[in-house]
Amino acid sequence: MNKLYVIGIGPGDLNLVAPKALAAINNSSDLVAYGLYLELLGDACKDKQRHTLPLGEEIARARLALDLAASGKTTTLLSSGDIGIYAMATLVFELLDMQLQAKEKHPEWLSVDIEVVPGISAMQAGASAAGAILGHDFCTISLSDLLTPWETIDKRLHACGQGDFVVAFYNPKSKKRDWQINAARDVLLQYRPPTTAVVLGRQVTREDESISIITLEELDANAVDMFTLVTVGNSETRHIVNGDKHWVYTPRGYKKKL
Amino acid sequence: MNKLYVIGIGPGDLNLVAPKALAAINNSSDLVAYGLYLELLGDACKDKQRHTLPLGEEIARARLALDLAASGKTTTLLSSGDIGIYAMATLVFELLDMQLQAKEKHPEWLSVDIEVVPGISAMQAGASAAGAILGHDFCTISLSDLLTPWETIDKRLHACGQGDFVVAFYNPKSKKRDWQINAARDVLLQYRPPTTAVVLGRQVTREDESISIITLEELDANAVDMFTLVTVGNSETRHIVNGDKHWVYTPRGYKKKL
Repeated sequence: MNKLYVIGIGPGDLNLVAPKALAAINNSSDLVAYGLYLELLGDACKDKQRHTLPLGEEIARARLALDLAASGKTTTLLSSGDIGIYAMATLVFELLDMQLQAKEKHPEWLSVDIEVVPGISAMQAGASAAGAILGHDFCTISLSDLLTPWETIDKRLHACGQGDFVVAFYNPKSKKRDWQINAARDVLLQYRPPTTAVVLGRQVTREDESISIITLEELDANAVDMFTLVTVGNSETRHIVNGDKHWVYTPRGYKKKL
Repeated sequence: MNKLYVIGIGPGDLNLVAPKALAAINNSSDLVAYGLYLELLGDACKDKQRHTLPLGEEIARARLALDLAASGKTTTLLSSGDIGIYAMATLVFELLDMQLQAKEKHPEWLSVDIEVVPGISAMQAGASAAGAILGHDFCTISLSDLLTPWETIDKRLHACGQGDFVVAFYNPKSKKRDWQINAARDVLLQYRPPTTAVVLGRQVTREDESISIITLEELDANAVDMFTLVTVGNSETRHIVNGDKHWVYTPRGYKKKL
């Protein structure tokens, strides 16, 4: 059987990689990934044929993974976080879909046995590091308008505000995009207080991790880069201080019972 | 130092438990949990003092965990999934918050060193088992109106519809609540096609796992129980069939580049 594992390795800390993801790597002869993710895994990848393609080459990576698996090589396509959340899994299925519609010329892809292994996403690592900001209903919005029109993103920002959802912003900024996070802030300020808690988690669980807690009105593109996960609380999210320890949590409504 | 680990053990499969979560258990003398979760862990919990409190005793569990840790016992409070998502972490911080406001009489809680360890949530396991339905912007909504007024939930359902978010419904039904999932379906039907793909994941990654793929108009309370995670696609989510294999994925917009 031609096997393709599609796995997420979590936010970066090896202690947050699921054993099932490591087993997939162990079973594989070939790994396809953005190079940094293989570095994070260290020795777990040794003795494997590594195929590293740079950022921006996502489609080529998905094609290569399907090609390798179809050729009989047990292959793992991997990303950080959860590969099902703003990552490569959906692209593998999109290519498969194109083939099923005969819009690709790779019938051999249809013989590949695909197995997706979930991982801990950046929003979860960021929330845990700062408390429990995702404790009640939340949404995720990617601020990258490279693939999604800004009108769609803007519609979702307003829906997020109207629904008073906690929101985790993925892809808040890149070298070529800098205004989206401020635009998102301005939409949310129409719906929730300027003092709403915001958690900025940069490189969470990695060597140069930094976590900061600010308010919605303080949120600014200058404090954010492409390694930052920005999570904005809802109108009930609380920022509490115990000595030198800061926590942010979103209550579920137990208060009336406490 | 009085240490309290607050950890998620993932959806049930031991191969999806993060090593960091197991290390927390290993470091602890006392475990506090709903009993089923300790059963899922099997031998990992042996030789530990176990404090199991039934469903509905969430506040008592959080209090006990803080009490045990404050008394000097290294303690782990654990839940399935991610303990920061619709689970116990936020309740621990809510109690801490009450103490900081002097509304509790447990100043000893303030000496507890809390560490939260994230886990893979049910929505991630369900999405992976069926493909990649969470591949683009999504939201999560708990349909339990025990702690959240239905008006708030209803507002979020409409926001989800307006924003065309994929949505994972937690707590879709219980012994005492059966109408909410149908009400949620009816709201979404105002915004997206009746043919929209829905993934029902029951006991995902556990022995009696079952995954089924239906349409939004077919969604009904009779097909759902408290062990079911219901995920509804957005207007672009695709259900594809390759031989006897069914997949559901939500595209990110690469299509124009393929």
